[in-house]
Amino acid sequence: MNDREQAVFEAGIKLGALYHQWVGTPISRDSAASVEKAIERAVILQPFVEEITVRLDRGLMTENRFGYSELSGMMYDVEIITRVGFTYCRAQLSPEKGYPLMKIVECHEIEALPGH
Amino acid sequence: MNDREQAVFEAGIKLGALYHQWVGTPISRDSAASVEKAIERAVILQPFVEEITVRLDRGLMTENRFGYSELSGMMYDVEIITRVGFTYCRAQLSPEKGYPLMKIVECHEIEALPGH
Amino acid sequence: MNDREQAVFEAGIKLGALYHQWVGTPISRDSAASVEKAIERAVILQPFVEEITVRLDRGLMTENRFGYSELSGMMYDVEIITRVGFTYCRAQLSPEKGYPLMKIVECHEIEALPGH
Amino acid sequence: MNDREQAVFEAGIKLGALYHQWVGTPISRDSAASVEKAIERAVILQPFVEEITVRLDRGLMTENRFGYSELSGMMYDVEIITRVGFTYCRAQLSPEKGYPLMKIVECHEIEALPGH
Repeated sequence: MNDREQAVFEAGIKLGALYHQWVGTPISRDSAASVEKAIERAVILQPFVEEITVRLDRGLMTENRFGYSELSGMMYDVEIITRVGFTYCRAQLSPEKGYPLMKIVECHEIEALPGH
Repeated sequence: MNDREQAVFEAGIKLGALYHQWVGTPISRDSAASVEKAIERAVILQPFVEEITVRLDRGLMTENRFGYSELSGMMYDVEIITRVGFTYCRAQLSPEKGYPLMKIVECHEIEALPGH
Repeated sequence: MNDREQAVFEAGIKLGALYHQWVGTPISRDSAASVEKAIERAVILQPFVEEITVRLDRGLMTENRFGYSELSGMMYDVEIITRVGFTYCRAQLSPEKGYPLMKIVECHEIEALPGH
Repeated sequence: MNDREQAVFEAGIKLGALYHQWVGTPISRDSAASVEKAIERAVILQPFVEEITVRLDRGLMTENRFGYSELSGMMYDVEIITRVGFTYCRAQLSPEKGYPLMKIVECHEIEALPGH
């Protein structure tokens, strides 16, 4: 497997992992920022992750009769950048036609500096 | 079921829920505070919760070969206060003899004010 | 805390735990039975659980564009019986007015046999 | 992204997802088979999955003082085959030097039959 393929694989792992780790979390518009931050802090710890941005759609956080909501797959809007060697891949998790879709947006290689 | 019993029941629900929602989260000493806060913010949303304090044991966060750890049951040190009517119950989740034990610490009733 | 209160507490723990452990699981009408069984087998292991029955509402398992669904809180129909000493409590998790409600149905004490 | 890269991505998603969906499940040697089966049944539902085999290491299921254990990352021994177009990728999740490692084992393309 080359660097590009591994970067793609790592992005898949992280998106699948975060989805299932946090789905079901009690959430509200007020608490959403703390969950976003906790997810970002957790994902950035993992190997090959360069950047991670998590936005949770407040518009879907309709209140149940006790005044809160639950984190669902359709709320996720996530972008992650993984890196293996000199290859970077950007992937996303976001709603598409009613499904929380994960996809690779692009990968590119940085040229190694001369002498490296 | 009287208020005291329901307050006890609600405390059990919340402790069982938070344990299984967050166990397995990638974590480190640096990110632990953000996870503690996210758990507290999530639990306080739920019905009958008056107070919640979450401490995660940094001492157990030994680094794997990629430099992070994973939230395990033995790391939890949680205290929750639930209230139903005029009855408050205090419960805990914390390690006891190698097991992450959940227990009720005490319940008490507040006297309703005259006129209520 | 008396036996009845502890039985109530234990029922709450187990319902909160199972809800958050399995919510989000990919599921279909065909696979639902295997998830029900796995949940039952997991819950019965835990202390103070006498019986557990899990039914997942196939009617809510509408297919996404890839042909499957995801276990959501409203799908749960669970009944659990906990026992502490000679006291049994029966609790349920099931939809009520659009919310996956957990509640104690009844508790009762069995008389100890003479000589015990 | 070509078929091979997408097959790699999809394998990553599924391994990351299953790890975090089930970690923390109460488990014992007796109940392990039901959890293995439920995981397999859940993963096979997801898009691009051709085959999935889940084995959970009974040797690590040491009993806590209540007689059961909890599914941990090191217990997983999983092999998955994803397919996109005519490309198949085989990936694994299994312990390696004290870490539950996910890796691609191999990918290969099947030649399309003449007339297809």
